[in-house]
Amino acid sequence: MGKRKADKDKDKDKTSKKAKKAAKAGPPVSPLAPAEGFPPIPPIPGVRFAAAEAAVRYAGRLDVMLAHVDEGAAIAGVFTRSATRSAPVLWCEECLAGLSKGGRRGGYAILANSGNSNAFTGAVGRAAVAATVEATAKTLGVPLEHVFTASTGVIGEPLPAGRIAEKLADLAAGLNEGGIERAARAIMTTDTFPKGAFRKADLGETEAVVAGIAKGSGMIAPDMATMLVFLFSDAAIDGKLLQSMVAKCADATFNAITVDGDTSTSDTLIMAATGKAAMKPIRHGADPRARAFREALEAVMRELAHQVVRDGEGATKFVEISVTGARSPAEARKVGMAIANSPLVKTAIAGEDPNWGRIVMAVGKAGAHADRDRLAIRFGDILVAERGFVAEGYREADGAAYMKRQELVIGVDLGVGVGAATVWTCDLTSRYVEINADYRS
Amino acid sequence: MGKRKADKDKDKDKTSKKAKKAAKAGPPVSPLAPAEGFPPIPPIPGVRFAAAEAAVRYAGRLDVMLAHVDEGAAIAGVFTRSATRSAPVLWCEECLAGLSKGGRRGGYAILANSGNSNAFTGAVGRAAVAATVEATAKTLGVPLEHVFTASTGVIGEPLPAGRIAEKLADLAAGLNEGGIERAARAIMTTDTFPKGAFRKADLGETEAVVAGIAKGSGMIAPDMATMLVFLFSDAAIDGKLLQSMVAKCADATFNAITVDGDTSTSDTLIMAATGKAAMKPIRHGADPRARAFREALEAVMRELAHQVVRDGEGATKFVEISVTGARSPAEARKVGMAIANSPLVKTAIAGEDPNWGRIVMAVGKAGAHADRDRLAIRFGDILVAERGFVAEGYREADGAAYMKRQELVIGVDLGVGVGAATVWTCDLTSRYVEINADYRS
Repeated sequence: MGKRKADKDKDKDKTSKKAKKAAKAGPPVSPLAPAEGFPPIPPIPGVRFAAAEAAVRYAGRLDVMLAHVDEGAAIAGVFTRSATRSAPVLWCEECLAGLSKGGRRGGYAILANSGNSNAFTGAVGRAAVAATVEATAKTLGVPLEHVFTASTGVIGEPLPAGRIAEKLADLAAGLNEGGIERAARAIMTTDTFPKGAFRKADLGETEAVVAGIAKGSGMIAPDMATMLVFLFSDAAIDGKLLQSMVAKCADATFNAITVDGDTSTSDTLIMAATGKAAMKPIRHGADPRARAFREALEAVMRELAHQVVRDGEGATKFVEISVTGARSPAEARKVGMAIANSPLVKTAIAGEDPNWGRIVMAVGKAGAHADRDRLAIRFGDILVAERGFVAEGYREADGAAYMKRQELVIGVDLGVGVGAATVWTCDLTSRYVEINADYRS
Repeated sequence: MGKRKADKDKDKDKTSKKAKKAAKAGPPVSPLAPAEGFPPIPPIPGVRFAAAEAAVRYAGRLDVMLAHVDEGAAIAGVFTRSATRSAPVLWCEECLAGLSKGGRRGGYAILANSGNSNAFTGAVGRAAVAATVEATAKTLGVPLEHVFTASTGVIGEPLPAGRIAEKLADLAAGLNEGGIERAARAIMTTDTFPKGAFRKADLGETEAVVAGIAKGSGMIAPDMATMLVFLFSDAAIDGKLLQSMVAKCADATFNAITVDGDTSTSDTLIMAATGKAAMKPIRHGADPRARAFREALEAVMRELAHQVVRDGEGATKFVEISVTGARSPAEARKVGMAIANSPLVKTAIAGEDPNWGRIVMAVGKAGAHADRDRLAIRFGDILVAERGFVAEGYREADGAAYMKRQELVIGVDLGVGVGAATVWTCDLTSRYVEINADYRS
């Protein structure tokens, strides 16, 4: 077998000579990155983090993170539905199914690495999961089936499980409440900035923290979760309720973004609520505190999802597509995604072209119920087209000026119902093609 | 209203200053264009062609074509299913529905223009169709409902019907049996070469010609037909049988190609069989001549479909994706199209990267039944991966050498059934992004 057999699905260093040079100086941060940098996430009682350099693919960089969650936490998760999902995803699905049947006593761990996705690695991949998960369980003294794991990077190459296992003692020793930013850095691949977000949820008797980190930049068209997302809270909440909330929020956030229409084999979202906050547990959705908690959770997830789009490979524009007047929310989503994934729409946005004809095209191909003569299109507040034709007051110059913005809102009203959905995407630039084509020696 | 309100969906001159300069020298012909140039299509008894410069969008180029088909021909057609399909498409659908109910005596005409697609133009668009169709019917002395029309170019701008109508007398006077290449040139937009193909079908008592022309380069993900395709034969064949054959062949040819996953609002395929050949008509599919005719028809359609892919915007590689072992042919097609439309697969091909992990990813996201541990992937004859892992004998160097070819065959066996499908696509290069982004002043 050759030295390198497969895809670097999203590894930062899939570089041409030119790009390698750039990488030494550090890759340029996306122009859409949050200006304020990584947010000041407060400690989440019951959760500690550590990160290490394990040379999974390249030496000298953080590439493994460990999170430890105290006993008694509620755990939820959503995963890619890809038919070729990775060995770690299959393991996490099993663990979560076991927890939902009651589970065991003991703390939890999340072990994640970048540099290798351990996907399409067959029996070797399952063995690598077993090895790293066993080492984690032993080192931390938690049950084997409480160790969640996630990997991102090359598809089809054996994961160097030994190098990760060797680092576990150091990782365990380094666990601390303030380590979340380093953890976020350890899961970056083509990402140009670490992604984090938090909210404080007012739960009446107490204020709980809801925080999370994510990675993702390309191969972003999530189906139930995107890339790697780890969420934490000190709230006390029932596990099944948490799972239901997380799944619903994922649908409105991570499942509503797309960079390139390509769905990862490794998408993993795991949420741990430690119950350390001074509060009685939230046991059902009708509890008024459930709403406050869910709002905070969805806000954190939306912010992380937006950060993924803002770090889309080659992106120069952040685009919100708001579809209204559809037969159903599902049809609205379908139209939104058809627009968000259209190469012609995305290249027009890159070219700052108010190219609404391409939006008409994408609506037409979406497969949702639409009527050409009821369709209305807006750029921000500018009415561009309505009733099957260009709007009377629309001036091309206004559209062109609008498109120069870095953040765009495209509104599409189908005029055939009340279904609505919002999706987010970025533009398609030559840089995306370069990042993904121009890296072989 | 501004001077220019909408998309140039596929107009050749959507140019930046740089591109404008290049256009003056003539755009570079696709490296994948047929080496032998436009084929020597023989006259098709009963069909005559003409082309003219009508300055639909730009002066000094062929942009209108007219075909006249003698009385007694069988006519078939397939059209885009886009929900935002253009006024000419709606008109053609009506005409064809009328013909299938019996139709009238008299010859037929096909009038097509480039430079403006007359799509999303509302009542103005319908009026433009009426004006050009009426002028054609009157000039040629054929029934109004025997005049098919097609338009390709800008979306959302009124079609200058008057300028086209003015040219009809000249066009009618210029009709001749040898005019098919000029007709093919008149419908080019971003196309870099005119597309034509023919076969001779051995029908026992006679040999019939089956010939066609097409245009298409971007916005190519046909749904029932691609862009503009006009097919002709002197064979005598029942209209309903012809329609059924054309629809089936379109499914295996034009509906099996994709350049960018974007479906045009204007896709139109029209076929006329004049019945001038010295033969008794083919009345049913069981007639042994039906098979010979269908084979010739499918060969012509496949060749034209391949020419569209070979002229894909920015294309440097012609890629056949052959999927076998699926639960059904439809699932095989789904997987083939997921691979063919994946930006990550297409950029890897552009980068000559034997990036089979991305093919695994695309299979996984396709939504068809697949089993990671039964999947096999081939580049040409090279077995790359099987049973959920890289193939034992696979050497990266072999894959890398294969990817340097201009014509690639990617084989995917799902191992879960006997359904098979073949689709064709091209790579995704920075040039595609430039063509579609970098043209606004």
